[in-house]
Amino acid sequence: MAADPDCVFCKIAAGDIPSHSVLRSDSCLAFLDVGPLADGHLLLIPLEHYRRLEDMPPELVAGVCSRLPELGRAVARVAGADGYNVLQNNGRVAGQVVEHVHFHLIPRRADDGLGYRWLPKSYSQGRAEQLRDQLREALGG
Amino acid sequence: MAADPDCVFCKIAAGDIPSHSVLRSDSCLAFLDVGPLADGHLLLIPLEHYRRLEDMPPELVAGVCSRLPELGRAVARVAGADGYNVLQNNGRVAGQVVEHVHFHLIPRRADDGLGYRWLPKSYSQGRAEQLRDQLREALGG
Repeated sequence: MAADPDCVFCKIAAGDIPSHSVLRSDSCLAFLDVGPLADGHLLLIPLEHYRRLEDMPPELVAGVCSRLPELGRAVARVAGADGYNVLQNNGRVAGQVVEHVHFHLIPRRADDGLGYRWLPKSYSQGRAEQLRDQLREALGG
Repeated sequence: MAADPDCVFCKIAAGDIPSHSVLRSDSCLAFLDVGPLADGHLLLIPLEHYRRLEDMPPELVAGVCSRLPELGRAVARVAGADGYNVLQNNGRVAGQVVEHVHFHLIPRRADDGLGYRWLPKSYSQGRAEQLRDQLREALGG
């Protein structure tokens, strides 16, 4: 299994760095974030080292993500939260610090000060159609 | 296929409300968010109506999420972005507005003012172990 000797999440996956793990499968591991945004904040990682989501085989993303529902249900219940965010950052500009794919599960309560900065805009005339066409082409459609 | 007659995303999935769609499979649809946080901001939804992630069958989550890598690669390339966030909100308290599961793919650039509010804390002595044990129990482990 591909591992990066300098990657802290590879070391956690291998058990070389201890973690508070809550779920482990053949392909993934879920454990408590050591710098939690809220009680119960979890990280879900593939055991194998991939830097960004688009580097992962789709079937591996599928296997890892199939564990999100049970983790979301568990973390909301245990944290007594009314909801939760699933967040996965790709690239430093997107807030990714550890360069090993990880999904955050962040329990949410009213007025917790968390959440995504929401600054919506509108497309100018024709821009959405242009982006749609470029995206379809990029997707080979 | 289960649909909610009052759900805007069910109407988009059915084609009753137009959208700028970029990918469609037997189980999911990706289209441009009409109130984008950045050029190319995409939504990926299951065609079938589910309110929250934990309501979805794991195999359906797997199928939908297996499309995230190609969408991430395409949106970063088309938007000329250095990275992107994948964000999925569950519950109003978590920022969910449309109560039909959706994954945001948000292209990111330096100094775009976006991102998640990051206010990490530390666990008091024994708290992480307590949460780990409660989560393991909730997960049936």
